[in-house]
Amino acid sequence: MSTEPSSHPDAPAAAPAFRIGVLGRGTVGGAFAELVVEHAERIQRITGQRPEVSGVLSRSSGDFQEILANSDLIVELIGGIEPARGYVLDAMRAGKHVVTANKQLLSQYGDELFAAAGISGVQLRFEGAVAGVVPVIRVLQESLAGARIDRVHGIVNGTTNFILTEMARLGLTFEAALAEAQRLGYAESDPSDDVDGRDAAAKMAILARLAFGAPVHLDQVRYEGIRQITPDDMEYARELGLGLKLIGTAERIGEALSVRVHPAFLYPGHPLASVGGPFNAVTVESPAITEITMSGPGAGGPQTATAVLGDVVSAMIPPASPPEEMVELEIVSDIVSGFYLHLEVADEPGVLALVAQVLSDHGVSVKSVVQKGMSDQARLVMVTHAVLESNFFAATDVISQLDALRAPPRSIRVIEEEF
Amino acid sequence: MSTEPSSHPDAPAAAPAFRIGVLGRGTVGGAFAELVVEHAERIQRITGQRPEVSGVLSRSSGDFQEILANSDLIVELIGGIEPARGYVLDAMRAGKHVVTANKQLLSQYGDELFAAAGISGVQLRFEGAVAGVVPVIRVLQESLAGARIDRVHGIVNGTTNFILTEMARLGLTFEAALAEAQRLGYAESDPSDDVDGRDAAAKMAILARLAFGAPVHLDQVRYEGIRQITPDDMEYARELGLGLKLIGTAERIGEALSVRVHPAFLYPGHPLASVGGPFNAVTVESPAITEITMSGPGAGGPQTATAVLGDVVSAMIPPASPPEEMVELEIVSDIVSGFYLHLEVADEPGVLALVAQVLSDHGVSVKSVVQKGMSDQARLVMVTHAVLESNFFAATDVISQLDALRAPPRSIRVIEEEF
Repeated sequence: MSTEPSSHPDAPAAAPAFRIGVLGRGTVGGAFAELVVEHAERIQRITGQRPEVSGVLSRSSGDFQEILANSDLIVELIGGIEPARGYVLDAMRAGKHVVTANKQLLSQYGDELFAAAGISGVQLRFEGAVAGVVPVIRVLQESLAGARIDRVHGIVNGTTNFILTEMARLGLTFEAALAEAQRLGYAESDPSDDVDGRDAAAKMAILARLAFGAPVHLDQVRYEGIRQITPDDMEYARELGLGLKLIGTAERIGEALSVRVHPAFLYPGHPLASVGGPFNAVTVESPAITEITMSGPGAGGPQTATAVLGDVVSAMIPPASPPEEMVELEIVSDIVSGFYLHLEVADEPGVLALVAQVLSDHGVSVKSVVQKGMSDQARLVMVTHAVLESNFFAATDVISQLDALRAPPRSIRVIEEEF
Repeated sequence: MSTEPSSHPDAPAAAPAFRIGVLGRGTVGGAFAELVVEHAERIQRITGQRPEVSGVLSRSSGDFQEILANSDLIVELIGGIEPARGYVLDAMRAGKHVVTANKQLLSQYGDELFAAAGISGVQLRFEGAVAGVVPVIRVLQESLAGARIDRVHGIVNGTTNFILTEMARLGLTFEAALAEAQRLGYAESDPSDDVDGRDAAAKMAILARLAFGAPVHLDQVRYEGIRQITPDDMEYARELGLGLKLIGTAERIGEALSVRVHPAFLYPGHPLASVGGPFNAVTVESPAITEITMSGPGAGGPQTATAVLGDVVSAMIPPASPPEEMVELEIVSDIVSGFYLHLEVADEPGVLALVAQVLSDHGVSVKSVVQKGMSDQARLVMVTHAVLESNFFAATDVISQLDALRAPPRSIRVIEEEF
């Protein structure tokens, strides 16, 4: 077997094609088409079918009816209500599965779309509509199908989370943080939908529908945005030990529901308090399982395209088992890591220098040291920079032989912050 | 429509049955059977089929061949290698889907089991085997089918995470924290599999197989446990600003893999550093999507049973759209919340008392106050305890009319730590 799936000599080329019609040719559409080509072979191994883009409809080219006739599944990436709504309904009525990332459509015409999918017996999938590749839809529809859900809440808009993070971090005004978000591509030139909370409200309407099996419409979601937040609010919040987020909540209150979006201060231990920058995070609470929290980057071209392709793969088959044909990859045992090293040594001059020399001889560089004397003995605790494990252990072998050692060296790996 | 699904007058009773044979009658098996009954109607709405337990095999009762003949899907909850392996293989060869939570079996006989599933064209699902209801299997197999995965790492053993959390929190020895874990049911009477890292190693073998499409066997995973960790290590770690976790890692290193489990110190900003108690958390890293982190309670009876039922639902159909028949739930708008209240007032005696009186008249209780004078004016910032929103806003309406007010009151909701 080859280690390179794309050059696998006996790749099963005769697998049936699974034809995907793509509506819309924006950033997400382009990224999606590339992913299909790049991962076609892997998806064929998982599903037994070979995915291919059978047609693309853009404003200036392509014919919807022709694309529909030549597709097993339609991916809708046009956005907005019309013509997206008409195309999606036509596709389902024609017996085609539909994958979409269109939150406006789902939050305003959900009843109509889900009814049409049910009548035609096709799948309507939309993971990309809510939190990019963070799998909250999948979890609500499948993982927790056997659980009563009491509350879903979280950060479902990356633009506002980025703005609030920058305001807190740098003391910026809302306007300055928004300009920074626009410069980095996290906010659109007209940011109203995001900063006024309407985008988050649409997503919470979709999540509430799935969590509670109730027909929730965007108009029923109360929402507020973050334009009114001042640097002062942030400063007082810091004094009071709080952090500010735009939080969406859908919860049962007795036999009724509340679905809302508003800025809220969180205590530092709150699981959503540490979610910074353009990230999204959603917590699902259910008595049987306490809670699940999922976090990751919010919508962006590659994230949404990945989520859409995940939905396509799920629709291609009842996903059977993992790949039958596997790639062979070597398993290595010597890896790079930082280390905590704890030594009990004689409290005499030159011991630290000696230990440092041995470490240095083996390419181990020390980051921080704590030394404590205790009568005739001392404790030396240090943290190293990342080093190949075999080098580190060679060094501690030498150290363990030193006359000054009073006990075997103790070491534990240290994982650096990577984000 | 009724608000109570279980008494829905026109519940479709004629839906075909989906027959589930259960092997094993332990805690998980019992919880699973209860969940099937409790959620049968909801699952019928989602899948169009009515789930029912068609037979249960225990050590003392039931006949495997008879259960097999009467089932569409087999749930294996016996654990260990034999007879579980034989039953699972027989079931798949007979064309039945299999759902299992058996990590030993999957990490040691994965090649054989996945090959058998592929040959018979049945599904083999095992979300419950790795992190309870935290949907890491689903994410690797479906959500990220179109992503190259570089690393999966996390906390996949709740017992050791509980022990390490207690050692850090209370300065306990390993032995004392283990005894506490046993008393609370988080550790078994023979805790070796958990505390020596073997349970986590089996889970990492399964995750590595899915993430990289490579046949990884338990024997190829290097693992260390936590018996050797001392209160001293914890104390020095605190001085150095680090927290200690048992971390499982599966990662690409060039064209090879490393799969390992060992204790590791994490810097405080690390996404896994804040995961405490018996919780599990897994981060999946992929260049296209940066990363997804998922956390929730590790395996326990109800969690594993919920995960198993989620797998059964996924196997029942290519999960179509959300429920066609929905329940009607009232949407409420007046909810309970704490508030941050920011007032610009005249700096004269009695203003704070006056504001406090108005709040108190409306049932609003103040938790903390910061007051700052600025020439003839003062800023009063307070945080309230939870109160019905309508009461709070009635109070701020009155406050906004006070002569001492220099600007309209500003308020933002505060979410309490709930865990």
